[in-house]
Amino acid sequence: MAKNRSVVEPEVPTIATGAQAPASLSRPQGEGRRRVIIEGISPEVDGGRFAAKRTLGDLVRVEADVFTDGHDSVAAVVLFRHESAADWTEIPMRAIVNDRWFAEFPVSELGRYHYTVHAWVDHWETWRRDLLKRIAAHSDTPVDYLIGAELIRAAAERAGDQSRTEDGRWLREQADLLSKNGGDGRDDNRSISISPALNDAMLRNPDRQFATELGRELILVVDPVRARFSSWYEFFPRSASSQPGKHGTFADCEARLPYVAELGFNVLYFPPIHPIGTKFRKGKNNSVTAAEGDVGSPWAIGSAEGGHKSIHPQLGTLEDFRRLVKKAGEYGIQIALDIAFQAAPDHPYVQKHEAWFKKRPDGTIQYAENPPKKYQDIYPFDFESSDWFGMWEELKSVFTYWAEQGVRIFRVDNPHTKAFPFWEWAITEIKREYPDALFLSEAFTRPKVMYRLAKVGFSQSYTYFPWRNGKREIAEYLTELNKPPVVDFFRANQWPNTPDILTEFLQLGTRAAFTIRFLLAATLGANYGIYGPAFELLESRPLRPGSEEYLHSEKYQIREWNLDRPDSLREMISLVNRIRNENEALQHDRYIQFHPVDNDMLLCFSKRSPDENNLIVVVINLDPHHKRSGFIDLPLDQMKIEGNKPYQAHDLLTGARYLWTGPRNYVDLDPASVPAHILRIKHRSRVESDFEYFL
Amino acid sequence: MAKNRSVVEPEVPTIATGAQAPASLSRPQGEGRRRVIIEGISPEVDGGRFAAKRTLGDLVRVEADVFTDGHDSVAAVVLFRHESAADWTEIPMRAIVNDRWFAEFPVSELGRYHYTVHAWVDHWETWRRDLLKRIAAHSDTPVDYLIGAELIRAAAERAGDQSRTEDGRWLREQADLLSKNGGDGRDDNRSISISPALNDAMLRNPDRQFATELGRELILVVDPVRARFSSWYEFFPRSASSQPGKHGTFADCEARLPYVAELGFNVLYFPPIHPIGTKFRKGKNNSVTAAEGDVGSPWAIGSAEGGHKSIHPQLGTLEDFRRLVKKAGEYGIQIALDIAFQAAPDHPYVQKHEAWFKKRPDGTIQYAENPPKKYQDIYPFDFESSDWFGMWEELKSVFTYWAEQGVRIFRVDNPHTKAFPFWEWAITEIKREYPDALFLSEAFTRPKVMYRLAKVGFSQSYTYFPWRNGKREIAEYLTELNKPPVVDFFRANQWPNTPDILTEFLQLGTRAAFTIRFLLAATLGANYGIYGPAFELLESRPLRPGSEEYLHSEKYQIREWNLDRPDSLREMISLVNRIRNENEALQHDRYIQFHPVDNDMLLCFSKRSPDENNLIVVVINLDPHHKRSGFIDLPLDQMKIEGNKPYQAHDLLTGARYLWTGPRNYVDLDPASVPAHILRIKHRSRVESDFEYFL
Repeated sequence: MAKNRSVVEPEVPTIATGAQAPASLSRPQGEGRRRVIIEGISPEVDGGRFAAKRTLGDLVRVEADVFTDGHDSVAAVVLFRHESAADWTEIPMRAIVNDRWFAEFPVSELGRYHYTVHAWVDHWETWRRDLLKRIAAHSDTPVDYLIGAELIRAAAERAGDQSRTEDGRWLREQADLLSKNGGDGRDDNRSISISPALNDAMLRNPDRQFATELGRELILVVDPVRARFSSWYEFFPRSASSQPGKHGTFADCEARLPYVAELGFNVLYFPPIHPIGTKFRKGKNNSVTAAEGDVGSPWAIGSAEGGHKSIHPQLGTLEDFRRLVKKAGEYGIQIALDIAFQAAPDHPYVQKHEAWFKKRPDGTIQYAENPPKKYQDIYPFDFESSDWFGMWEELKSVFTYWAEQGVRIFRVDNPHTKAFPFWEWAITEIKREYPDALFLSEAFTRPKVMYRLAKVGFSQSYTYFPWRNGKREIAEYLTELNKPPVVDFFRANQWPNTPDILTEFLQLGTRAAFTIRFLLAATLGANYGIYGPAFELLESRPLRPGSEEYLHSEKYQIREWNLDRPDSLREMISLVNRIRNENEALQHDRYIQFHPVDNDMLLCFSKRSPDENNLIVVVINLDPHHKRSGFIDLPLDQMKIEGNKPYQAHDLLTGARYLWTGPRNYVDLDPASVPAHILRIKHRSRVESDFEYFL
Repeated sequence: MAKNRSVVEPEVPTIATGAQAPASLSRPQGEGRRRVIIEGISPEVDGGRFAAKRTLGDLVRVEADVFTDGHDSVAAVVLFRHESAADWTEIPMRAIVNDRWFAEFPVSELGRYHYTVHAWVDHWETWRRDLLKRIAAHSDTPVDYLIGAELIRAAAERAGDQSRTEDGRWLREQADLLSKNGGDGRDDNRSISISPALNDAMLRNPDRQFATELGRELILVVDPVRARFSSWYEFFPRSASSQPGKHGTFADCEARLPYVAELGFNVLYFPPIHPIGTKFRKGKNNSVTAAEGDVGSPWAIGSAEGGHKSIHPQLGTLEDFRRLVKKAGEYGIQIALDIAFQAAPDHPYVQKHEAWFKKRPDGTIQYAENPPKKYQDIYPFDFESSDWFGMWEELKSVFTYWAEQGVRIFRVDNPHTKAFPFWEWAITEIKREYPDALFLSEAFTRPKVMYRLAKVGFSQSYTYFPWRNGKREIAEYLTELNKPPVVDFFRANQWPNTPDILTEFLQLGTRAAFTIRFLLAATLGANYGIYGPAFELLESRPLRPGSEEYLHSEKYQIREWNLDRPDSLREMISLVNRIRNENEALQHDRYIQFHPVDNDMLLCFSKRSPDENNLIVVVINLDPHHKRSGFIDLPLDQMKIEGNKPYQAHDLLTGARYLWTGPRNYVDLDPASVPAHILRIKHRSRVESDFEYFL
């Protein structure tokens, strides 16, 4: 255990290099004898500018390149502490290969952890290693033992010599024994020197006077497990009524909970539940003028009835909402709210906080635009407002208001149209109070913008998954997302559809097309979601050809859905969510790997649990029209399956069990029935001939 | 031109994120309206911890990801200054694709440059871009022009309104014109708004009040061109005598200069020229005991006759040496000295600076060891010495002593056995005084150690090239070396042999084997070298089978060489060095690219000059025994050759000219004659049918 070190020293003496050093300095400041180099630390996001992300219970693997000049041995430790702890905990690093070292520490608390690396030349280990070589070559000499005795005597002093400690006294004795007769007692000295007890005592009292410290503390944000593994279901509360034509309520949503639970989802996400603006309200199918009785878009937030902290009166009361949150909790379901920072012209903010909106020279407020298109029903906030901090505080308080009502998951609408510094501040501040809060970034925009939002704090992010249909593009994109540094700050949430996105592929409208996209989302993504009931009921009609908007979109009108339709995908969805819950491999993205198949329409990948005890191989036919077959090629070595021994592939979708041997195996998938295998791989570890053993 | 800004502000308000921020701060410090993000800057080595490297006259391309929230346009500039300049020079960045921006600046002085990036939301460009869309859609309205007038009026104020400047006065007029009649003068306003003169005036007076600054200054070290393009020849001065059995002198070296110049080398490197230790001196072929008259290893430095600042008396005087340096200069050749920081037991340092060496408990000094091997003729310096800084200063002064004698190139022996902080300090300090000094790192050790030495300041580095024989391993290794970040700090120097390395491949002993390795080194490496005359005279006898040591190694004895032997490679070497001098493509490594050949023994790659005017394609037969043929496949697009037009491949080795069309062309190389093509590619740009045009 190291002491609390709040001051971290630089790794090398400050010399005249880099822009920070004074240009005329020639005498190095500080200790020039810190010979160990620490570099290439992982996880590290943008040189430590941003936190890396993990979830509760993870074993965090820290790696670094650690080496020194010459041939001396080195020792290294990772220091970590939860932000609430004053003291560091130290764990020794171990060498992997090629100067790469690692250590793992468990994270058992939500919030922020600090971690860093220290390393030093280990003269004891150098001596010990060299002595073993000398002994092997019969070339050990008395002076070798005298050198050892000096090292041990110094350790005794560090331990508290003068009989003050157990180690101190004992080490002093060992040193004296070694140096007896000028070190000339080869047989005795050999056994003293190589004794494990001596090595242990020396390891407890290392010489760190010239230790190198990384020079910066890195940050890890630990989120609830649901940040890594979540199954989202989105529906419009106002369409939840069982009575045709009636505006749904929170009570109707409550009645829908058993259905959502049966489907197996654990996050239930609602589009905005606030009062809807009346000025410039959009009509059905996004028509510019609303007809009498048109309900408007929930994203046009605010009216005389209130703004972002109010509830649309037709949905119910705050009390109803709190009750729904509680009820959902009983089903293991968390309610996620949509936070869309924009105001309808009749939002109370517009009157009360004129400075938060851009004014035009004619005195009107600037509405949203994408010239020549105009969105007069929406006023964007002006992040260059003179009252920017007043606005930041109010916007932050929208989250905390709903957090006080029991909500912990927020889906943020178009975060990329709000300033990054705001998000970094707001999310950090909110999580200080609610470390279990999760934020999903809805930014379908340029890749660097999406990544930056994740870096500044968003817990999960929508991705380009809806538009990735080909085998190669899926494999490339998922590989990019799931390797460092991206996987350390960006958590994908894969959606086959949203109220804004009815993809061309889904517009095929067949059960096979929906099943393929569903299976891809639910197996590629430890986090995934669907917008239902449109999804399970195969809703596929676009507003017009070439559009990704739904015809009769729920964004602008109430829809009625017959959940009991026989062609619903509900059973498949239930089954796959159960498989996800029962197989830890599918609850992580970090360990995904794509495998060759000699058919371009078959995608094959595997996922494993961190402890490697759960291994899932997924094969999906990407072609919704034709049966496809081919040979998949699995890396048995990495899967720890002996090449000549049979292993079982248990298809969790159909229950079929295949006995496979070798890396190449035949698959044959028909989109007309089940277009995928989700195979749990079990290798025989005991009885060669006992097929029953697998069962 | 920006003003000198020595204080660089952070890119975002300091908020409670990262380890540096106080944990309880909730009010952001600083300006929250800096909306632009700058990240992913290049070149940048380890987050700016180390300098990037360039050479005199380079055009430095700086890239960065620059973007903001929403849809506003952004503007960005690179600021740079030579360390001697007080003021920054600014150059505008231009967008490439996907939020990536770049700018280029020339470096015309040796030494250190600082550079950084600033960027801001460009409201003017946003307005202008949107207005053009509105005009195209005939949807521009008076208020649009009033908004423009406001932006122009603000620029006028920044320019110095009230008639104080040309821009100020004129912009004010434009604003007044636009806002006449409440902006209602569409035709006039359109032409005013889109006038290039207005745009130029606005660009001269940008609104940078909320500009984001990168937050750190990056460093570029500018070296002489020879750091990037050099041809090294190494020989032992003591073997330079033309009289058999006589110890060579600097005068003999002088007589050898025309030969070296004829070969075309521009760096002549000598093993250590200092007095050689007598205690534990090694005999011929590294025998532990020296016979009477054995000359010893030049790397066992120091005797009663002096140390690292002295000259071995048998070589001549300091005056002789200075004369040699001067004479070499007349041939365009720079002398490189070998600096080996270690002491023979009779080195004066050992008496004078006991503290610089490790003492053993028996009072003796610790000699070099690799247990169980002992190197009793060599004492290593102890970089944990209590007098470490005294030692650093003395070691540094060894370089400056020789720099005072006119030497600027130093080949450093085993730098990886000396502490990294020493090198970082010493090289930085020496280059402050001698910015034209070059340091070649002789560290044949683990990759991360080699890279770190380059990062801390070495100008060039030996590589694993001697042991890379296969096509794939050559391509992979050279690709790793020549892409960022490695290429920004590590400059390879490729050697087919050294006095320590007679590779297995060269032990084949054939002219073809030597030619292949020579051609690889001289074309793959803008920096390369050979140890001669052993190389050109095909010396291939190892000390014993399996050893890479030479038999009768010059490290321990004087050798006589007949430079005029008819089988010498001197003509080939002369020719290739001439080709290197005449083709800029071969003077850079950064633009190397490997190309497919359907024969695993044929290696094909291309190099180009930065201006793309010189393009060289090299094809080498890696098989020293058999003729090999195949089709090479060139990326004509990238080479700017139209696919259906013929282009000329002029073989600079044989003089042959081939007229090729299309990417795939046949090659056929016989190791018995010339095992390679060095093809200069010329594309026809004018006359389709005129073959003469190529000539």
